[in-house]
Amino acid sequence: MSLADEVEVLLCDVFGTVVDWRGSVSRQVAAISDERGWDLDPVAFADAWRGQYGPSMNRVLVGEVPWVNLDELHRQSLLSLLDERSVSASAEDIDAMVHFWHKLDPWPDAVDGIRRLKRRFIIGTMSNGNVSLLTNMAKYADLDWDIILSAELPRLDKKNRDSYRRNVALLDRPMEKVMMVAAHPGELNAVSELGMRTAFISRPFEFGDSGQELPKGQSVDVACSGLGELADALGV
Amino acid sequence: MSLADEVEVLLCDVFGTVVDWRGSVSRQVAAISDERGWDLDPVAFADAWRGQYGPSMNRVLVGEVPWVNLDELHRQSLLSLLDERSVSASAEDIDAMVHFWHKLDPWPDAVDGIRRLKRRFIIGTMSNGNVSLLTNMAKYADLDWDIILSAELPRLDKKNRDSYRRNVALLDRPMEKVMMVAAHPGELNAVSELGMRTAFISRPFEFGDSGQELPKGQSVDVACSGLGELADALGV
Repeated sequence: MSLADEVEVLLCDVFGTVVDWRGSVSRQVAAISDERGWDLDPVAFADAWRGQYGPSMNRVLVGEVPWVNLDELHRQSLLSLLDERSVSASAEDIDAMVHFWHKLDPWPDAVDGIRRLKRRFIIGTMSNGNVSLLTNMAKYADLDWDIILSAELPRLDKKNRDSYRRNVALLDRPMEKVMMVAAHPGELNAVSELGMRTAFISRPFEFGDSGQELPKGQSVDVACSGLGELADALGV
Repeated sequence: MSLADEVEVLLCDVFGTVVDWRGSVSRQVAAISDERGWDLDPVAFADAWRGQYGPSMNRVLVGEVPWVNLDELHRQSLLSLLDERSVSASAEDIDAMVHFWHKLDPWPDAVDGIRRLKRRFIIGTMSNGNVSLLTNMAKYADLDWDIILSAELPRLDKKNRDSYRRNVALLDRPMEKVMMVAAHPGELNAVSELGMRTAFISRPFEFGDSGQELPKGQSVDVACSGLGELADALGV
C-alpha cells in the first residue's frame, strides 16, 4: 500500500510552512511606519516580534500567567516592543497591527497545492495561531482548508504534545492516518514520536535568506520543496 | 447599511437545514437490512433513531452520564433500537451504521449555495454533530465550509446557549456579526436572544411530508426556501 493510501488527513503548520510571515509582517510594519512617521526597521521589528512568541508562550505553558491566545500574546509583545522603541501608537493602530498576523501572504505554491491535496485528503491547519486568526487568514490568502485545527482548541501550545493528540482525537483517526506537514524538523520529530506521518517542506526563505534544513539522519515520510510537489508525491 | 454589510459570518445548522438526514439514513438502513435479511422499517427506524437523540443528550447535559459525542450517542441508541427489534448485528455493522450519519445527502440547493455564500462571508457549521462527523460529511457531500464549529468543542449541546457563545468567541466576533442559518424556529429564537442574526430556511420535507414552519409572530432577519435563495437575499 502506498503512502497516499495510508494517509487520510494532512495537517499543516502555517507560519513559515504555508505563509511567509516575515515578509508579510515586515511589509505591513513598513507601511504603517511610513504613514505614521515612526522610526522602525520593519524586518528587524518582525523578527523581534516573532522572537517574543516562544518566551511569552512558555510563561503561559507553565501557568505563570493564565492562558491567552496568540492574538493576545502578539498584542502584549507588540506593546513592549513599541515601548522599547519609544513609539506611541493609538489603540486603533495596535489593533490593526495585531491583525497584521491575520493577513499573511502564502508561498507561491500554497493556494494551488492545498486545492489539489484537498481533492483526495482532508486538509487542515494545525497551528499555534488562534482559530479566528487562521480563519481570517484563510479568507485573506485563499487557503481552502477543510478544517481549522489549532492549539487554541485545547488551550495549549504545540510544544505540548497533547495539543496534537487532542486535535487528532477530534478527527477520530489513529495517529498513523494523519500526516503533519511542516517546514520545521523539530516539530516533525515530535509528531513522529506520536505516530504521525511526516512531510517536510523546505522553505529556504522563511528567515529572509535562510530556512530550517532537515538534519542529516532525520527521516521523514516525504520531503518536498512546496505543497505542489507534495501533491505530486502523493499522486493528486 | 444592508444586512449583508453587517454580517461577517454565517453559521449553519446541519441536520435538516443543509442535509436530508431522514432520507439518507433510511436509504442506508434499507440497504443494510436487505443485505442482512433484517426485518426493519427503514423510515420508522431513522425516525426512532433520531428521536432518541434528545432524551440521551439530556442525560448528558444534566451530568447523569459523562459527556460523549454524537457518534457515541448514536451508537448507544442504535444498540438499544436493534435490541428492541431483536436484530443481531456484528460489530462491523454497528460501526458502519453509526457512520451512516457521516454520509448524509445535501438538499439540492446546499452545495452551490454554500459555495456562493463563501465568496463574501465566512461560512461554517454550528451543529451538535461531532467534528469528525461534520468533516467526513463535508467531504462526502461536497460542502465547502470555511470552518467546522460544533457543540463538541465546548463539550455541550446546542440546548445550552454557551455552546453558541463559546464557538462564536473562537471567531472573535460580536454576536451581531454572526448569522445563524437554520430550519428550526426554536433554535433561531434562542440565538436571537443572544444577539445573533437569524436566517430561516424552509425545509418542508425534513420529516418526509412536513417540516418546521416559522410561527406567525416570530421575526427573523431573512426567511428563504434554500441556501441559493439566501445567497440571492444577501446579494452574492
